[in-house]
Amino acid sequence: MANEGASVSNKQVIFNNYVTGFPKESDMKITTGSIELKVPEGSKDSVLLKNLYISCDPYMRERMSKLDRPSFVDSFKPGSPINGYGVAKVLDSTHPKYEKGDLVWGFTGWEEYSLITAPQLLIKIQHTDVPLSYYTGILGMPGVTAYAGLYEICSPKKGEYVYVSAASGAVGQLVGQYAKLAGCYVVGSAGSKEKVDLLKNKFGFDDAFNYKEEPDLAAALKRCFPEGIDIYFENVGGKMLDAVLLNMRVRGRIAVCGMISQYNLEKPEGVYNLAQVIGKRIRMEGLLAGDHYHLYPKFLELVLPAIKEGKIVYVEDIAEGLENAPTALVGLFTGRNVGKQLVVVARE
Amino acid sequence: MANEGASVSNKQVIFNNYVTGFPKESDMKITTGSIELKVPEGSKDSVLLKNLYISCDPYMRERMSKLDRPSFVDSFKPGSPINGYGVAKVLDSTHPKYEKGDLVWGFTGWEEYSLITAPQLLIKIQHTDVPLSYYTGILGMPGVTAYAGLYEICSPKKGEYVYVSAASGAVGQLVGQYAKLAGCYVVGSAGSKEKVDLLKNKFGFDDAFNYKEEPDLAAALKRCFPEGIDIYFENVGGKMLDAVLLNMRVRGRIAVCGMISQYNLEKPEGVYNLAQVIGKRIRMEGLLAGDHYHLYPKFLELVLPAIKEGKIVYVEDIAEGLENAPTALVGLFTGRNVGKQLVVVARE
Repeated sequence: MANEGASVSNKQVIFNNYVTGFPKESDMKITTGSIELKVPEGSKDSVLLKNLYISCDPYMRERMSKLDRPSFVDSFKPGSPINGYGVAKVLDSTHPKYEKGDLVWGFTGWEEYSLITAPQLLIKIQHTDVPLSYYTGILGMPGVTAYAGLYEICSPKKGEYVYVSAASGAVGQLVGQYAKLAGCYVVGSAGSKEKVDLLKNKFGFDDAFNYKEEPDLAAALKRCFPEGIDIYFENVGGKMLDAVLLNMRVRGRIAVCGMISQYNLEKPEGVYNLAQVIGKRIRMEGLLAGDHYHLYPKFLELVLPAIKEGKIVYVEDIAEGLENAPTALVGLFTGRNVGKQLVVVARE
Repeated sequence: MANEGASVSNKQVIFNNYVTGFPKESDMKITTGSIELKVPEGSKDSVLLKNLYISCDPYMRERMSKLDRPSFVDSFKPGSPINGYGVAKVLDSTHPKYEKGDLVWGFTGWEEYSLITAPQLLIKIQHTDVPLSYYTGILGMPGVTAYAGLYEICSPKKGEYVYVSAASGAVGQLVGQYAKLAGCYVVGSAGSKEKVDLLKNKFGFDDAFNYKEEPDLAAALKRCFPEGIDIYFENVGGKMLDAVLLNMRVRGRIAVCGMISQYNLEKPEGVYNLAQVIGKRIRMEGLLAGDHYHLYPKFLELVLPAIKEGKIVYVEDIAEGLENAPTALVGLFTGRNVGKQLVVVARE
């Protein structure tokens, strides 16, 4: 580890400029600055972090756009490092809640070391007998999203029919496994044979299909759910949502977690079958993990034993080194990743 | 009244054939059959009704189409009378729940007299110190829709911002008044100056606008709701829903009661702004009155005194005579009606 207090080099992933359409690696660049490994004199309530893992998440696409209206996130700042969820170690702290040596997860920078001047939202990691990288996924924001989205918004009942799109992703693979634990019949879709195999053979989905090989999504869903769908965990949007609406059952529930098929389009696709919501009394509800972090302790009580007992598994797609972070991030939007995409900045 | 047991003439509104696009008067025809004013010998659990008022409701448009998939309603049967909600008097009964002279509301035929062989769903009218026609509107299906949609689905809180489209219609005028009773700030839209005046001056909406005169619906809503919309009562769909989604606030609620702008289109319009649901954690929920009839006694306890004390008013558009029923029904879809559209078949 670098000497504390000394100035060291600090590799960073810089956001170049606002993006339209699919993001490219050239929308980011790697630079090297320097940083002192101490909270600067007079900075109260701050921490200096050594970043270990950073998380690539679909919601980051919106932050690459110039947002001309209020959103739940800010745009990235051109010329500044990307930021997002990650796992880090506290090297120095002037905040009473954190001390040197603590492991934390939460918002940090895409760089080797970050000075965080508002660390209140960093969550201290208490359990280290699981892979630390899991705090970017199953034990982090995507994990809370899957848990709260399924249990709080969709209230699954034994025997219900559950459909998950983008089902091998960071959130989807967990939703499917939670729904199986709740006694549901679960089908997932993904964009390659490899991912479909994972769904069926690794995550225990009852069935799965490759949406790219289905000319008629509504027919594919009808085939997988002859009785219809009770719960849809929405990660995709657009044509997929339209096909789902036709196949929903009365009193169906849709947790709207993301719409990744839409993020890179100049104009989103229309959704044409919303009138189905009326006759079927469908409930659709949007979801952000941030609203549910108060459930985190209860969530850990369920998930940590399930991980240790092998009742829940988690597949990660791990890129090595900050210099590979741009490729990892843009790969999300073409589905290049298999499982939860993250980047190792440093192993502790 | 006709002699009971004698065969009398029975004017009927016959549905000619399935409709595409806007319905026309010529999609129906008036014929005269005959009927004996008694439940036929051997017909158990049946009633013979004299129809007094029949109700024209937007959901009936779907029933004019040939439905090629399951829906919450059946298509009308070509060559048979239209049926729908109405108010009627029992002339004869072999059902233990009903007796001669009872007034009822519920499903009946568009004809002078109807034999109902499954009358279980007819609700007996206990309160006749209000206009009987109200049981097609404020005290019938539209009334329950407005009440359950606003109170059960949207849970309005004092000071919240409520928007109602098709706001002078059978349901909208009530939603706005209930929302005012709940202490909300209420804006409605409608399609003529006359209707906008009603909203502001008769129903007590805080503001109202004519959507036909607004080239930019999102801008109109922004003007009326600079702080955004907490609750949207959806009667319209399409472009209106898109404009609303842009103006919803975090944790907003949308009760989806109808989408009248879409019913006559060969292909519905796309809705493009659904991704707003995620960041704003919007809840949208479809609504049918039929799910909420168990609340009817509680509902009457609230509404009957409110009517008598003048706290709630109701505007009806009353057509005279079955022969005018086709015009009344098709007028719904161009907004010709001002207030709740109904037809007098006979005054008691």
